[in-house]
Amino acid sequence: MKIAVLVGSLRKDSWTRKVARALEPFMPGFTFDHVEIGHLPLYNQDLETDQPPTEWTRFRDEMRAAQAYLFATPEYNRTIPGALKNAIDVGSRPPGKSSFAGTKPGAVVSVSPGMFGGFGANHHLRQTLVFLDVAVLQQPEMYVNNAAKLFDEHGALADDSAKKLFEKFGAAFAAWAKRFG
Amino acid sequence: MKIAVLVGSLRKDSWTRKVARALEPFMPGFTFDHVEIGHLPLYNQDLETDQPPTEWTRFRDEMRAAQAYLFATPEYNRTIPGALKNAIDVGSRPPGKSSFAGTKPGAVVSVSPGMFGGFGANHHLRQTLVFLDVAVLQQPEMYVNNAAKLFDEHGALADDSAKKLFEKFGAAFAAWAKRFG
Amino acid sequence: MKIAVLVGSLRKDSWTRKVARALEPFMPGFTFDHVEIGHLPLYNQDLETDQPPTEWTRFRDEMRAAQAYLFATPEYNRTIPGALKNAIDVGSRPPGKSSFAGTKPGAVVSVSPGMFGGFGANHHLRQTLVFLDVAVLQQPEMYVNNAAKLFDEHGALADDSAKKLFEKFGAAFAAWAKRFG
Amino acid sequence: MKIAVLVGSLRKDSWTRKVARALEPFMPGFTFDHVEIGHLPLYNQDLETDQPPTEWTRFRDEMRAAQAYLFATPEYNRTIPGALKNAIDVGSRPPGKSSFAGTKPGAVVSVSPGMFGGFGANHHLRQTLVFLDVAVLQQPEMYVNNAAKLFDEHGALADDSAKKLFEKFGAAFAAWAKRFG
Repeated sequence: MKIAVLVGSLRKDSWTRKVARALEPFMPGFTFDHVEIGHLPLYNQDLETDQPPTEWTRFRDEMRAAQAYLFATPEYNRTIPGALKNAIDVGSRPPGKSSFAGTKPGAVVSVSPGMFGGFGANHHLRQTLVFLDVAVLQQPEMYVNNAAKLFDEHGALADDSAKKLFEKFGAAFAAWAKRFG
Repeated sequence: MKIAVLVGSLRKDSWTRKVARALEPFMPGFTFDHVEIGHLPLYNQDLETDQPPTEWTRFRDEMRAAQAYLFATPEYNRTIPGALKNAIDVGSRPPGKSSFAGTKPGAVVSVSPGMFGGFGANHHLRQTLVFLDVAVLQQPEMYVNNAAKLFDEHGALADDSAKKLFEKFGAAFAAWAKRFG
Repeated sequence: MKIAVLVGSLRKDSWTRKVARALEPFMPGFTFDHVEIGHLPLYNQDLETDQPPTEWTRFRDEMRAAQAYLFATPEYNRTIPGALKNAIDVGSRPPGKSSFAGTKPGAVVSVSPGMFGGFGANHHLRQTLVFLDVAVLQQPEMYVNNAAKLFDEHGALADDSAKKLFEKFGAAFAAWAKRFG
Repeated sequence: MKIAVLVGSLRKDSWTRKVARALEPFMPGFTFDHVEIGHLPLYNQDLETDQPPTEWTRFRDEMRAAQAYLFATPEYNRTIPGALKNAIDVGSRPPGKSSFAGTKPGAVVSVSPGMFGGFGANHHLRQTLVFLDVAVLQQPEMYVNNAAKLFDEHGALADDSAKKLFEKFGAAFAAWAKRFG
């Protein structure tokens, strides 16, 4: 099953990206398509012509090709980053032709270097995914906090409680995705 | 008092922009700075060097120079557009140097051509403004719905109940802004 | 399939209750258990002894016996009524023994006599249902507005667009519930 | 200045209540009215007669007499407890006669024994307070986490970073309240 991974932080060495990568071994049976979102022109309906920006078209094709979605996001100003929201806006248009259509399974993982684990971003994103008709896993919720302390000096996941959470998440998501298979 | 106006839709003829313009006569005593947000590169911390993108620097200067903020936003996918969120992300950085700092007064106006008046965008934006320390007017809430029906064929505001709401809003915001003067 | 119906308004003639009843013919194959919530003592952990209030125990048993949940709610002060939230608090306790446990299917229907259809209540309730692990139908979203105008003088559903929405909802929920059967 | 304190947990020894009490020394110049909410009958419009429940009337009078509001709340199921929401529902009715009316200053403090500090309760409550026209302090946000570890064996606040946060909060709220004096 091909899962599109959207990472909300554009920073090359972002903790969110590391967490998204670290989840992969806990999700056997999936292939991961790490989708680029940093180059997408800001959504503007005036560009929605017969020839929309090629970056939009390619992104939309990737969303359409995916069988599931993993959203990994930091929290910027108590909600999701503009870059991630822009990608969703692009993918959901034009009206009536959303490339997310079809009740596909998805998951939200919010990540923070601090204590609160991106709670605000996590739930705002879930509100958006209601509209997109992405069927989002409910439990376990994934608020990954203190992200900088989860990895050892080689970048390997080293925190035991994170490992347990990731394992639980991987199993739950596999069972969830099967319901929509 | 100089108020920066941020419009969440980039479309040239957007209803949100028209509503923002139509509010001006109801807000005497303010000068309006319609700030461009469509050209801002997506926020990426890797670009936050000694020489960040010039569009970022100019936008941050405009935010800093404003004495109040008016956010006029459509709802995309049950929350604010990526373009508006990106502008806020840019303005709020780098950490500890937010150009919104200083407990300035602000208001949120959500606009939709449909029935629900952008409720989801309105309140998600309010959650973000808590973090930015923008003091947001509470009442009257501004959910401007059926936006396409508010204007006559010359583009003038023609709807009586909208006029009354705008008038109430203008008076309330003037009184609110005075508390922070 | 036995579905527990929780109505957020305690008023005998509430529009929300009428809408919940009006949905039933559009949901063939379900039996409806209209659960009382108005008599539940406010949740207080000090009452969580070996002998909790009998109303709590009965309600918890009803939640446990249900195979699906339908939450029909008005919006009070931009979120769900205290009475509905209290029922959920009672049902979810004691910790580790939630009577909602088990990834059962559910749906949220928000109802208002005004224009906005209870958007705020709808999404706040969805946030709570993430924690309860109730798998909530995403589409169609059910914001039932202008509720007073949907019924004829005999109390029968008479509004055509409401009928279409209810029909779409009934079919979508049946398909959704089957995924969890 | 008389501030009404509403505590969302009914448990006698609740952490939230302790935190609310511990804030008082950091808020000189205020007198604190700890309002009872656990005895309020669930809001039901059918009881809104010429003779509503006396507990409602007394509570409404207390809300009306207050010059400011402090809401201290735990998080139950990712939002505020039913008991607190019910109190707000009672106080805000009947329509057009809200006992919260008048743009009074307020603050939200969310408390948890765990890591996330009641983020979900904090922001849901803020959404409600928009409708009530309570002017809520934006910064510092008060997410009081690990609440059980803040106090010494005599019940005195003993955590240094909590003390600093409470001090910052007390000063900010005093300045905020003055704007509405």
